[in-house]
Amino acid sequence: MVKIGIIGIGRIGKIHTENICYNIPKAEVTAIADINMTDKVIKWADGLGINRCYKDYRKILGDKDIDAVLICSSTNTHAPISLEAIKASKHVFCEKPIDLEVHKIMEVINALEEKNLKYQVGFNRRFDHNFKAVREAVSNGKIGDPHILKITSRDPAPPSIDYVKVSGGLFLDMTIHDFDMARYLVNSDVEELYVQGDVLIDEEIGKAGDVDTALISMKMENGTLAVIDNSRKAVYGYDQRAEVFGSSGMLTTSNDKQSTAMLSNEQGVLSEKPLYFFLERYMDSFREEMSCFINAIVNDEPVPVGVYDGLKSVIIGMAAKKSLEEGRPVKISEIKF
Amino acid sequence: MVKIGIIGIGRIGKIHTENICYNIPKAEVTAIADINMTDKVIKWADGLGINRCYKDYRKILGDKDIDAVLICSSTNTHAPISLEAIKASKHVFCEKPIDLEVHKIMEVINALEEKNLKYQVGFNRRFDHNFKAVREAVSNGKIGDPHILKITSRDPAPPSIDYVKVSGGLFLDMTIHDFDMARYLVNSDVEELYVQGDVLIDEEIGKAGDVDTALISMKMENGTLAVIDNSRKAVYGYDQRAEVFGSSGMLTTSNDKQSTAMLSNEQGVLSEKPLYFFLERYMDSFREEMSCFINAIVNDEPVPVGVYDGLKSVIIGMAAKKSLEEGRPVKISEIKF
Amino acid sequence: MVKIGIIGIGRIGKIHTENICYNIPKAEVTAIADINMTDKVIKWADGLGINRCYKDYRKILGDKDIDAVLICSSTNTHAPISLEAIKASKHVFCEKPIDLEVHKIMEVINALEEKNLKYQVGFNRRFDHNFKAVREAVSNGKIGDPHILKITSRDPAPPSIDYVKVSGGLFLDMTIHDFDMARYLVNSDVEELYVQGDVLIDEEIGKAGDVDTALISMKMENGTLAVIDNSRKAVYGYDQRAEVFGSSGMLTTSNDKQSTAMLSNEQGVLSEKPLYFFLERYMDSFREEMSCFINAIVNDEPVPVGVYDGLKSVIIGMAAKKSLEEGRPVKISEIKF
Amino acid sequence: MVKIGIIGIGRIGKIHTENICYNIPKAEVTAIADINMTDKVIKWADGLGINRCYKDYRKILGDKDIDAVLICSSTNTHAPISLEAIKASKHVFCEKPIDLEVHKIMEVINALEEKNLKYQVGFNRRFDHNFKAVREAVSNGKIGDPHILKITSRDPAPPSIDYVKVSGGLFLDMTIHDFDMARYLVNSDVEELYVQGDVLIDEEIGKAGDVDTALISMKMENGTLAVIDNSRKAVYGYDQRAEVFGSSGMLTTSNDKQSTAMLSNEQGVLSEKPLYFFLERYMDSFREEMSCFINAIVNDEPVPVGVYDGLKSVIIGMAAKKSLEEGRPVKISEIKF
Repeated sequence: MVKIGIIGIGRIGKIHTENICYNIPKAEVTAIADINMTDKVIKWADGLGINRCYKDYRKILGDKDIDAVLICSSTNTHAPISLEAIKASKHVFCEKPIDLEVHKIMEVINALEEKNLKYQVGFNRRFDHNFKAVREAVSNGKIGDPHILKITSRDPAPPSIDYVKVSGGLFLDMTIHDFDMARYLVNSDVEELYVQGDVLIDEEIGKAGDVDTALISMKMENGTLAVIDNSRKAVYGYDQRAEVFGSSGMLTTSNDKQSTAMLSNEQGVLSEKPLYFFLERYMDSFREEMSCFINAIVNDEPVPVGVYDGLKSVIIGMAAKKSLEEGRPVKISEIKF
Repeated sequence: MVKIGIIGIGRIGKIHTENICYNIPKAEVTAIADINMTDKVIKWADGLGINRCYKDYRKILGDKDIDAVLICSSTNTHAPISLEAIKASKHVFCEKPIDLEVHKIMEVINALEEKNLKYQVGFNRRFDHNFKAVREAVSNGKIGDPHILKITSRDPAPPSIDYVKVSGGLFLDMTIHDFDMARYLVNSDVEELYVQGDVLIDEEIGKAGDVDTALISMKMENGTLAVIDNSRKAVYGYDQRAEVFGSSGMLTTSNDKQSTAMLSNEQGVLSEKPLYFFLERYMDSFREEMSCFINAIVNDEPVPVGVYDGLKSVIIGMAAKKSLEEGRPVKISEIKF
Repeated sequence: MVKIGIIGIGRIGKIHTENICYNIPKAEVTAIADINMTDKVIKWADGLGINRCYKDYRKILGDKDIDAVLICSSTNTHAPISLEAIKASKHVFCEKPIDLEVHKIMEVINALEEKNLKYQVGFNRRFDHNFKAVREAVSNGKIGDPHILKITSRDPAPPSIDYVKVSGGLFLDMTIHDFDMARYLVNSDVEELYVQGDVLIDEEIGKAGDVDTALISMKMENGTLAVIDNSRKAVYGYDQRAEVFGSSGMLTTSNDKQSTAMLSNEQGVLSEKPLYFFLERYMDSFREEMSCFINAIVNDEPVPVGVYDGLKSVIIGMAAKKSLEEGRPVKISEIKF
Repeated sequence: MVKIGIIGIGRIGKIHTENICYNIPKAEVTAIADINMTDKVIKWADGLGINRCYKDYRKILGDKDIDAVLICSSTNTHAPISLEAIKASKHVFCEKPIDLEVHKIMEVINALEEKNLKYQVGFNRRFDHNFKAVREAVSNGKIGDPHILKITSRDPAPPSIDYVKVSGGLFLDMTIHDFDMARYLVNSDVEELYVQGDVLIDEEIGKAGDVDTALISMKMENGTLAVIDNSRKAVYGYDQRAEVFGSSGMLTTSNDKQSTAMLSNEQGVLSEKPLYFFLERYMDSFREEMSCFINAIVNDEPVPVGVYDGLKSVIIGMAAKKSLEEGRPVKISEIKF
């Protein structure tokens, strides 16, 4: 039985907690910590049989019973808490991004070096049924050599301007998932990219120094030409699709829907919108990533998404920002740290 | 060059004429006849290079130049003109049904007996790209032995009450196509059927002695269980689908549409309605059936839809009427003539 | 907190147990009983925090702590245990069918009469996301008056011959779900039906006195013409679809799949098969039906599928058997008890 | 009756000839010319009722009867024959591209200046049912302001190396259609583009100085971010799709297929491949573009695709070549002529 402490009980922290309690027999949540440990949270935890509820996450790190921690607190705390947790010899599952600055991620990597600890990063989309099916088919040679990769990733509504100001911007809070997905689907790193981006949805996003619509074309190390398109606002819901075209075929996915029901009438044939947002679309993937993390600990196997995956997506995100600023293609190798 | 005379220049007569003129190099329309040979029709024929325009179809039958006739006049004339045309040694393409009475069709069959003439019946749907693909796949064993056959056939709007009164009713003017389709798709005759029918759309249809909605379940001679569902009014357009389920798979078709365009918005994902009616959906099939008729003449090969196919659909239609009237399953062999 | 005892720990008993433990906060499993209470089951129960594991279900019925029981034992025990449970004033969730004999179901109905107890029957498909969406759209008038209803229900593989011999046959073990679905989708009872059935898959099924392929055409009390088609063996997996056609539109569903991935190559465009069988397809519906049962108890509301629903499906199934035996349409009112 | 002379009787010249003869009542083909006027072509023309068959296209230009010419000869002759035809006061339909050099297209534009002549360029895809539906929906505001445009355009097999050497390369023989489609779908010109291209299919194409796979990202003047992806070899057939995403919705198209038949079996659910190549996919569009050309002459209306459309696609193609060569984004305004 793997004993888990969860740091940060926001939306995603709660999801992981419930998934472990309800769906992962090999693990249990021993303690939780949140800077705002409200009565409501304590009551919720009690309902799950969790009694140790702290304000200070250090109580979790100091608890000898606890084998692993989940870092679900705000982004700026990911790297420092990772360092402390590693020091305390805890396995770590850290939400993405590890940090917005590369040198801080490098510190985490260095800290891990002589430790035999698992460190998984929360790129949950790798565990989505659709994308996993594509990755497996590509790996099994179903399409031969990949030539063209297309990822569509559009949110149903923009985040708050306050979030935009601290998130690291579109490339580091949203596209970062797509960078990881590109690497995952064709099993190759990015070599170079070129970004077009603009403010087409909300001028406030522009004033906050960010773009809300972007097209990122990339050359992968294995020769695949890739393109990601992003929008902060798809009125029809969360649009999450991928297409991989290769020398002997093509794989495509479409969006998940609440039901397959279709209505034919005088207006046409109407099917449902995609599931609204990531909580609806990716709920199963959160369960699956956690299950894999626990298995990696129990069986002492490599984690499916490691610290280098966390590092690389941030570096690609920085290259994307540079490309947009300088209006030119940028090689990933240009990003120094 | 096969020389054709066309008898009856209504909607379908015009379609056949233009198809022969424009798309069938091996045939030409030498003459046309219509009881109402208007100036407008004469002008239309002139534009197609057709100069012989008669009121009396007998002029066509008496023309030694003419090899074959198309009988596109009203249903009650099909059998008598067929008989005269056969006597005049013309090949015949006759629109369905040959007649509403079996003994009159038998006369046509008898007349054909010692003649080496082609006689094709206008079951155009056999030449539709979707149904042809299903038939071929079934014939090629793609689904093993057929077990269940489902045909959906719904018109976008009911015909006029005047038409309902003389058409022979739902089973002989509309379902007759589906009876032929059932025989075609699983390559077997009907053994027994049971009909449920009702007036759900327009009371006037009921007053005219017909139903407007029906469900016909059939047992085919090869053991396939089959069901046809009919409606005189599908608000979303012409609904023409088939499904054949067998021991090693299933074949399905969907409706044709004007375009593949789909609109995703806050209401959902909207695609187009099916093509409106038979002229839109089956235009290619009219061309194809005519091409096959001409080829059968040129190459002296059997026609793809013969006089017995015409007979059998009418007999099945009569069995359907009997089943509805008597509220019991009826064997095809019960229909005497 | 509703306290539950579960009687019969086979496949479905385990599913309900785990669903209550993991997903229904308002209920807990207090005790389980199974005639074969193995060490393996005891260990599994222990992992779920269930300590009271009995061989004799009467210990559950005698336990004052327990509010409700789930009857998941073999079909022949459903009615007698129901009676005992009602006598012991337990709410009951009973797997379908309540019994294969109508008079035994009547005893259960009578026993319930002066008790204020909930009695829900396990027609889980009503809670499936696709069928629920159709039912809601029909109820909301999206298609106007329903005219034609089509239900496709095909299993991926036949059950064992031993099961066929005791199950009550195709109509009472398999089609019973579809009878209930027909009543649910158009919110109307069945008036009359006519059955065609045959042995097309496995002669052993025929020797056991049953059919393996059937087409059931029905007239619903609200005038809808309905057809159900069944097969014991669809090589491509569990085929569970419905179509409701009405005066102002049509609703259709398609099968659920493991992923939306599609592979285009020289053979064509290949998408996945339907989910394999009911455990895969209907897992969410089992959770949902249980949640509704618990809510009905907690809020003292009517159950969504009551004892009369259980009764009616059995009566329809008996009418279906009669129709097949006698080769004629049978009115539901002909079934006496 | 518009009298047409057709110059160049290759594959596309024949298609236009037959379309005019069979499907466009307002026009007739008076004469044809081809540098290789074989007996086979003469016989084919005779079958269509065309008697004037020349080796020298100047005979057509000198024929006072003839109102309009179609230039379907090899690319390098398009501009010079256009100039001669304009001088001879013929309306012109010219296959794309007008020329591979901008200054030669400018000569044609200048020659047209004081003439009241129609000059249409053969961008047939604008007349495709799918793309036309998208254009109309975008124009009607169905998706609000366009933000992202994606065009997929992949051939089933590469052309001969000989063709690659003279065609102007991928961007001028293949992508040129997609550049025009981008301008058409969002009704805006291209401002800037960036190209990634590589030789992933056939090294011989690389040796001939071309690429066979490309990703072109563009900024349109109206702010839309656009991407075109091209491959010379899609093993599953001709892949021609578009997606336009905007502030209030998204439009997508899928490929046309020979039939809607689908086969479900143990391997999955198999539907047909896209239609093989442009002759299959775009046959209707060739008919439609010709019909529009004739209507423009008859009604003295603007042609739907004019000489400037022909010019602009070539300029964009040159910008694409420059971007690939120089590895940087290129503004369309950089292309001087």
